[in-house]
Amino acid sequence: MCVTPHIVYIYIHILLVVVVIGGRLWWQMAEFVHLVVVKFKEEVVVEDVIKGLEKLVSEVDSVKSFVWGKDIESMEMLRQGFTHALVMTFSSKDDFNAFQAHPNHVEFSTTFSAAIDKIVLLDFPVVTVKPPPT
Amino acid sequence: MCVTPHIVYIYIHILLVVVVIGGRLWWQMAEFVHLVVVKFKEEVVVEDVIKGLEKLVSEVDSVKSFVWGKDIESMEMLRQGFTHALVMTFSSKDDFNAFQAHPNHVEFSTTFSAAIDKIVLLDFPVVTVKPPPT
Repeated sequence: MCVTPHIVYIYIHILLVVVVIGGRLWWQMAEFVHLVVVKFKEEVVVEDVIKGLEKLVSEVDSVKSFVWGKDIESMEMLRQGFTHALVMTFSSKDDFNAFQAHPNHVEFSTTFSAAIDKIVLLDFPVVTVKPPPT
Repeated sequence: MCVTPHIVYIYIHILLVVVVIGGRLWWQMAEFVHLVVVKFKEEVVVEDVIKGLEKLVSEVDSVKSFVWGKDIESMEMLRQGFTHALVMTFSSKDDFNAFQAHPNHVEFSTTFSAAIDKIVLLDFPVVTVKPPPT
């Protein structure tokens, strides 16, 4: 049995188009972000808090992605004492609501609240101006 | 001329593996985030500021992606007066430095500074805990 190269090229072409469009759609999908900017109390071991968050996001399916970071530019006037940012994404506001109401999140919130000195929290639907290259 | 299905399957398999690994690498690549949390002055037309940002990120190649959002949960105690978040990503700290030093950014910063009531700004390398599905 054999397949003509013609058919193979068409097949691969369709496959690539689906993958590329899929990639773009993923990013452009009405995503929702839960953004936390925080300064932890001095005695807090940040690694422990991150471990707790790792556990939490692995347990709650509606959390689509979770990244975090610690400011390294240290422009004190601009960071205003805040040191860490936590960014969770969700496919929809409903998924975010599910996360908020999830018992594991409710439980973790108590631990988290005890660890923070100050916090700013924003929850917003994402407006994409410049999507990353796919 | 004909191609055996065997070869076709192997080819498509390799192609998919490359696409999937590429997708993961993109996300896991040492990315750098420039995060701005802001409250604009009351008289400011936010759309105009966003238009300025759109222009800026389209002019500066080192900006990999730019998304923004306006908080819709309005938990005043937690958002502390801040209303908007701006998130820019870069492939590396060097790309971020190039953006910071770019004359168009320096010029835009003056306009932006005049529009803000308060701001928190964090610049950090991304630590990915839960990557989005690829």
